[in-house]
Amino acid sequence: MATPKRIVVIGGVACGPKAAARARRLDPDTEITIIERGRMLSYAGCGMPYCVAGDIEDCRQLNYTPVGVPRDAVFFRNVKNVTVLDRTLAQQIDRENKTVEVVHIETGEYRTIPYDKLVLATGGLPFMPPIEGIRLNRVFRMHQPEDAVAMRDYIRSGQPKRAVIIGGGLIGLEMTEALARNNLHVTVIEMLPHILPGLLDVESAAFLTKYVRSLGVDIRAGEQVARIVGDDQGNVQKVVTAHGDEFPADLVLVAVGVRPNTKLAQDAGLEVSKFGIVVNEHLQTSDPDIYAGGDCVANRHLITGDLVFVPMGSTANKHGRVIGDNVLGGDERFPGVLGTAVLKVFDYNVGKTGLTEQQARDAGYDVVTALAPSPDCAHYYPTHKLVFIKLIADRETGKLLGIQALGPGEAVKRVDVMAAALTFGATAEDLTRVDLGYAPPYSTAIDIAAHAANIIRNKMDGTAQSISPLTVKEKLDRGDEFVWLDVRSPSEYEEMRIEDPRVKLIPLGLLRRRVDELPKDAEIITFCKISLRGYEAQRILEGEGFENVWFMDGGVMAWPYEVYTKPAGG
Amino acid sequence: MATPKRIVVIGGVACGPKAAARARRLDPDTEITIIERGRMLSYAGCGMPYCVAGDIEDCRQLNYTPVGVPRDAVFFRNVKNVTVLDRTLAQQIDRENKTVEVVHIETGEYRTIPYDKLVLATGGLPFMPPIEGIRLNRVFRMHQPEDAVAMRDYIRSGQPKRAVIIGGGLIGLEMTEALARNNLHVTVIEMLPHILPGLLDVESAAFLTKYVRSLGVDIRAGEQVARIVGDDQGNVQKVVTAHGDEFPADLVLVAVGVRPNTKLAQDAGLEVSKFGIVVNEHLQTSDPDIYAGGDCVANRHLITGDLVFVPMGSTANKHGRVIGDNVLGGDERFPGVLGTAVLKVFDYNVGKTGLTEQQARDAGYDVVTALAPSPDCAHYYPTHKLVFIKLIADRETGKLLGIQALGPGEAVKRVDVMAAALTFGATAEDLTRVDLGYAPPYSTAIDIAAHAANIIRNKMDGTAQSISPLTVKEKLDRGDEFVWLDVRSPSEYEEMRIEDPRVKLIPLGLLRRRVDELPKDAEIITFCKISLRGYEAQRILEGEGFENVWFMDGGVMAWPYEVYTKPAGG
Repeated sequence: MATPKRIVVIGGVACGPKAAARARRLDPDTEITIIERGRMLSYAGCGMPYCVAGDIEDCRQLNYTPVGVPRDAVFFRNVKNVTVLDRTLAQQIDRENKTVEVVHIETGEYRTIPYDKLVLATGGLPFMPPIEGIRLNRVFRMHQPEDAVAMRDYIRSGQPKRAVIIGGGLIGLEMTEALARNNLHVTVIEMLPHILPGLLDVESAAFLTKYVRSLGVDIRAGEQVARIVGDDQGNVQKVVTAHGDEFPADLVLVAVGVRPNTKLAQDAGLEVSKFGIVVNEHLQTSDPDIYAGGDCVANRHLITGDLVFVPMGSTANKHGRVIGDNVLGGDERFPGVLGTAVLKVFDYNVGKTGLTEQQARDAGYDVVTALAPSPDCAHYYPTHKLVFIKLIADRETGKLLGIQALGPGEAVKRVDVMAAALTFGATAEDLTRVDLGYAPPYSTAIDIAAHAANIIRNKMDGTAQSISPLTVKEKLDRGDEFVWLDVRSPSEYEEMRIEDPRVKLIPLGLLRRRVDELPKDAEIITFCKISLRGYEAQRILEGEGFENVWFMDGGVMAWPYEVYTKPAGG
Repeated sequence: MATPKRIVVIGGVACGPKAAARARRLDPDTEITIIERGRMLSYAGCGMPYCVAGDIEDCRQLNYTPVGVPRDAVFFRNVKNVTVLDRTLAQQIDRENKTVEVVHIETGEYRTIPYDKLVLATGGLPFMPPIEGIRLNRVFRMHQPEDAVAMRDYIRSGQPKRAVIIGGGLIGLEMTEALARNNLHVTVIEMLPHILPGLLDVESAAFLTKYVRSLGVDIRAGEQVARIVGDDQGNVQKVVTAHGDEFPADLVLVAVGVRPNTKLAQDAGLEVSKFGIVVNEHLQTSDPDIYAGGDCVANRHLITGDLVFVPMGSTANKHGRVIGDNVLGGDERFPGVLGTAVLKVFDYNVGKTGLTEQQARDAGYDVVTALAPSPDCAHYYPTHKLVFIKLIADRETGKLLGIQALGPGEAVKRVDVMAAALTFGATAEDLTRVDLGYAPPYSTAIDIAAHAANIIRNKMDGTAQSISPLTVKEKLDRGDEFVWLDVRSPSEYEEMRIEDPRVKLIPLGLLRRRVDELPKDAEIITFCKISLRGYEAQRILEGEGFENVWFMDGGVMAWPYEVYTKPAGG
């Protein structure tokens, strides 16, 4: 292929500038132009919550290179030899004549820019649901650095005391921390049954919800916002749910998601799905001279093979490099994504990759799961902290499908390891064999991700028979009879326990001796703190001839409902 | 296969008890016996440095379960239904009659224990080199918890002020921190040319050495200990090197490595290599009724296919589970190891997996490497810290061979991700595509491991032409002429710089304009802080027609030699 003379990129954040810079490094001569609505390029949108939180003192840092140079048109000219048309909107693509019609936002001047290869990096648009009052003053969204600065200025005025966040997804929760750390009382209203839907399953979401509530945040899942009410100044006053509950608010953040910005592509007659612009593995649209990447495109999910909309800065940057090569005739491929997401929620690290159990079931898998709350490093090492792991695999093949990891401990490492494993189609068995780094400050001898994979394997070969806490709850609600065998020590029981008449305490070390106390024909559900001992108890009882024994996945630590905890100092 | 009636395990730490416990969970009836020299089983040997350091107040925790139950014979009887013959030495294996002869250490009583399946988990033995004075008082080794307790008691007496550690390997460095944190002056003497030989290459070791020295530790690499000298009480007084240097010492730690304890296997006529007992993928020795695992066996290196001796608690535990299955007729396999190692050295996290560059060259690979010192998360996020990454790949195929990651930042996550990638034979290209978790507190949009993989790819396709700092040093030593082009900003240059007349400062943003200042025919070596801009400069100059341009791998941050740093407050 002859080198194209003119490469035009629409969109100056993440994918677009990355594609431009890569193309320039590969070819010193091609003419490269970026069309960008704003003045700054390549700003770090993901940093906005930390700007509001106050972690980043100078929000302009989001626009700067690591050595403090603003990423504006001058920078791109001097360093990258790339022309930036800033404050400029792309209006229309003329595919036949290979031109883009643009308008300057301030002067209103129109121009027609010719291209040989065009790159669409038009990003995402925050979804603003059609709720009454959504245009009131002090109803924010978090789309670009200006939004973060405006919210921060308002917070620093000292006026707002109560915030309502509509949407308990990733941005909603990052912003919950940001606002709470500014001493605002925060209410999160999530329409779906639990927070972080799509990232977490019920049990992991319950684990996180318990924690966030313990910090004074009001989490309302399964509730829908009916309207936002303002005062006579047009300032927000309260949020009203469909149930009629009212939440006073000096500040509202709408964070119900983002949609791919596909208008330009659609108008140009390119193939577009509801997940974004449709591209092939080369990130080429249905017009071979037009590439697209970043939040505006549909990605292929590497596990299900389905098209998905998963806008991520990391993916956008990967896209940019691939496109930078391919507009110059390269053969780079971007096979797809795993839907990986990580976030910090106060002092919890939260992450997910692959499919949740729900997503896996929806995709038709017969799944086997492990709930493994575990210390993130050697239990005798003083900084060890808990990580709640949920691992999901295909029951038939043992192929891993996804992980959720969260807690005060090192969860993100396990998510990244799983992302690597999932990329290569690893099975639970494969994961147990990976030679992960072991030293007491970093892990347990068998890393907790591998431990979870061993649980999966034990379940697959029938050694481990478990019951999900959700199923136990259903049995409780039905009034089923069973022995709920807690095999922890009396002192652990004193500290924390599930209070129910079915619970019977026999410490594991005494179980073999006291086995006669248990009725042979009863259903027995064993558990401990995390259900390692619960599993051991299940095996002991089966060895003793019991036939209806299950250990409860994840033990007390993963029990998503009420747990008695001894009052501090009590 | 009929279930064996009697399983006998020799060795009560890591692999042995794991095999026993796993076998018991699979079979409630088999008779299982562990023969152990000590009184405690399953102690956490890797925790010893933290016991000496004072991180672990009660060293008995190394012997306890997470809920505080000592792992002794009573525990194994009650919980695992496993018989432990403690304080007992296995003397001899009679393979024909399938018995083990044992002797009780305290009573001297002999017994003969019959087995159907035997498991050798005899561990490693610390190597004590034949140095004069090595048996003096206060010359320690770090083999079992008693060693840690004895050293700690001595330290707490307040007497020792100066320590010499012989051996700059993993244990030597963990113990350096432990002793320094007890306010001892520490000298580390390593025979090989740099610390952590086998784990790090020259540049990464230099990076770590600079840091450890900055904390007041005296590191002497490439020096051999000639003798240890004591006083008339038989207490250690000083260590003398082959060069004649003398290091006063109130305490000496010998940490020159461990050897597989293969005597019993060897005496029994089993196949043994210098890397340990030879086993197949099922961890079966040359006698199909005898299995072996843990530090006493030779492992297969997954990349080279060679036998290696890499004693690790993690591997031993994996072995235990595999053996627990296979002694009962299972078909579990343990394919091998990657030589992964991680350790904490003061506030640096240090890790490695796969091959070092040196090991890869020794194995016959034509390698391509990347040196990428990078912030571990978004540069605008306040907790970002540096990680020095060295990535090694096969030049022909791009197949990844190994990584070294170290620094104050999150290095271990990258090592574990690489361990997963190496397990599946990933290429550099594969690594760049992994959907790793991205959020500002955890990573950069393109994770630093993927960034290093991109450098490898750029080098493979000829876009990036780099020169190693070691080669630059050779050129300096030879007196070669070249332009050493620093493309950082003047303020960065003020803070820290390489002082050499060849250095010329042209900030990257001015390079296109000031390109005429550079002689077209000169050799130009570009660099910046980490050589991202150095690479950009190389591409710019090549675009301008320069033909002999290289960027220096890793920039100033990876320059292993003298760097001028502006005095604090100066």
